[in-house]
Amino acid sequence: MKFGGTSVADADKIRNVARRIAGARESGDNVVAVVSARGKTTDQLVAAAREISERPDPREMDMLLSTGERISCALMAMALHDLGHGAESFTGSQAGILTDTAHTRAKILDIKADRLRAALDAGSIVLVAGFQGVSTDRNVTTLGRGGSDTTAVALAAALDADVCEIYTDVTGVFTADPRIEPGARKLPLLTHEEMLEMAASGSRVLALRSVEFARNHGVELHVRSSFREEEGTIITQETTAMEKAIVSGIAHRSDEAKITVSGVRDQPGVAAEIMTALADSGINVDTIIQNVSADGVTDLSMTVPLDDLQGALGAIDQLAGQLDYQGVSADDQIGKVTLVGAGMKSNPGIAAKMFRTLAAEGINIQMIDTSTIRITVVIDRREIERAVRALHDAFDLASEAARRADV
Amino acid sequence: MKFGGTSVADADKIRNVARRIAGARESGDNVVAVVSARGKTTDQLVAAAREISERPDPREMDMLLSTGERISCALMAMALHDLGHGAESFTGSQAGILTDTAHTRAKILDIKADRLRAALDAGSIVLVAGFQGVSTDRNVTTLGRGGSDTTAVALAAALDADVCEIYTDVTGVFTADPRIEPGARKLPLLTHEEMLEMAASGSRVLALRSVEFARNHGVELHVRSSFREEEGTIITQETTAMEKAIVSGIAHRSDEAKITVSGVRDQPGVAAEIMTALADSGINVDTIIQNVSADGVTDLSMTVPLDDLQGALGAIDQLAGQLDYQGVSADDQIGKVTLVGAGMKSNPGIAAKMFRTLAAEGINIQMIDTSTIRITVVIDRREIERAVRALHDAFDLASEAARRADV
Repeated sequence: MKFGGTSVADADKIRNVARRIAGARESGDNVVAVVSARGKTTDQLVAAAREISERPDPREMDMLLSTGERISCALMAMALHDLGHGAESFTGSQAGILTDTAHTRAKILDIKADRLRAALDAGSIVLVAGFQGVSTDRNVTTLGRGGSDTTAVALAAALDADVCEIYTDVTGVFTADPRIEPGARKLPLLTHEEMLEMAASGSRVLALRSVEFARNHGVELHVRSSFREEEGTIITQETTAMEKAIVSGIAHRSDEAKITVSGVRDQPGVAAEIMTALADSGINVDTIIQNVSADGVTDLSMTVPLDDLQGALGAIDQLAGQLDYQGVSADDQIGKVTLVGAGMKSNPGIAAKMFRTLAAEGINIQMIDTSTIRITVVIDRREIERAVRALHDAFDLASEAARRADV
Repeated sequence: MKFGGTSVADADKIRNVARRIAGARESGDNVVAVVSARGKTTDQLVAAAREISERPDPREMDMLLSTGERISCALMAMALHDLGHGAESFTGSQAGILTDTAHTRAKILDIKADRLRAALDAGSIVLVAGFQGVSTDRNVTTLGRGGSDTTAVALAAALDADVCEIYTDVTGVFTADPRIEPGARKLPLLTHEEMLEMAASGSRVLALRSVEFARNHGVELHVRSSFREEEGTIITQETTAMEKAIVSGIAHRSDEAKITVSGVRDQPGVAAEIMTALADSGINVDTIIQNVSADGVTDLSMTVPLDDLQGALGAIDQLAGQLDYQGVSADDQIGKVTLVGAGMKSNPGIAAKMFRTLAAEGINIQMIDTSTIRITVVIDRREIERAVRALHDAFDLASEAARRADV
């Protein structure tokens, strides 16, 4: 069971979560709960560091930030004791979460869970500080964004848990963002691959890396509400028995920008040079499209995080010397809308229907990018909401029938 | 170098301490600095625990409270980096501070300082989170009151440091509390035994247990100001060469109460029974006096912490059955004034002079308790200040000459 920062923000919320954990234990399950830092704690610690130094040392940032989850864990253990349960808190290090030495963004290498198993065997509820571990050179490390989700999934894998429950402030994964599409429906079941595409395409329910970890280790996830008892969304491995939705859901994002390098000579290695330059600047390119070549020159378009736009343009300017191109244009007003469905690969015509729907709305498509279970279009940011609603309607996602593969 | 919570309360104070540490390093010394939790941090963590539970689990309290010093340490390391110094923070566990399993009041069993030595050899300034360690069963422990002083002294012993500097908000140990006696003089030198008696008798400059540890391991202490450069008070082993003050200083305390059990049968084991009953109730008896016996009965008087008075009276009532005594009286208005001096044992007449001085002031002595280097009197609490001033004057403590043994 993993609980985020908003679920443990104050004493009442901690007691509420403790009752939730106690309930699971009383139902006969062995429980390991991963807890994040309380509400604003991490922000306050970061602010304290900034007060001291402009560029705080990463090793020391990890020493500092790792305290937030330890505080939540200790308080949660106290609350469980008051409910009459044995409970022990463990730091990432005590939990045997071994990471590499990349401070503030460490990767989990191994989990030596013997200590946690011993505590579970003794009948205790085990509480683990999320988002942290201990490096191969025995320093405290943190796992970076989505770290606590990753901690939970990794422990579930190491302990061979029946399920990894991610408790959050929404009740599950929806067919679309309910703030945009009121008819959005909570999805009872998704495959790891579908959730990966949803997360990569803007769904904020789960951190992408935690879904990757779950898929790679076959961990079943259950995304559900911290505050309500209802079932959430199960995310599991695809099985032949499973009926596959043609379209499971719609994700969108509006935090990217588009760069087009026009008039690039159409020859091997050109794209590689540009990508290398961007990678060297630490810029993570998402969609990349190369238009068909005409008279030996072509256009290369890509999307990058909005915050990295200036950096990306600078990196490309650096290439002006060794690489000849006609011009570079940027658009910071783009948005992305993505259709995801495991059944897509076996059902042609989905793309056509998507494009027809957007055309009927008078929404112009600037870029298209597809995978076997995903179709992404880049459009004007101001048209995202209209596009999401139109597609949700066109693919009848509000009705359970839409999940039937034989539509 | 050990710095208390007030010395690191905010960013400016942390930078100030960092400059102090950097200065020591630049003068060519290897530096290990022990840092306490910032100002109110520990109080806030305790309050958070109380919000959750009336009686928080000790193991979890230690997990919770140990974060305060870790935060200070990490921030101090950042401040030192900005001054161009290599610095690494270590938790008590990482510093190899091995303790017993008595949570919230753990005792240090051993220090495996190989990691700290390696960091020092690499030229780093070492920062250690005070007040904490790791128990023999691998749980985080805290050392209780005065814990950070003890951490500093223990590390100084383990690393065979030249000196253990305790930085505080006073400039050293004084002949008396300057708030009471304006003429009080800072003592340049004290023996461990003198400091032990001063600490036990009410001087708050150093935690008693840290002085005991320093004496037992021959660690030289230097108590000095965090905010001023001047030399403080050196506390070291007694040597024959050292000139011994007849009277080094005056300590006082007003946080105790007196209990008298009257008409106790004067036979072996009676005092033992009463002390055992009090010990079983976790009450720490300080002074114990048994008056001369008359007609086979005697009076037994003792002082206990004011907070424990009711508990002590209750414990003694429990004995009413098996132990016959005429009555029990309590006085919660007492105070103690203590003269300390390593030269006392070789200079008779100090007690007489002390009593004459108090008599001349019309101050009545209720109890007397002495050691070879200490004389303590119990008087009315309201007369403490007058007694301290009169004795400071009578023994001429304001003048350096008073330290000469051949007075």
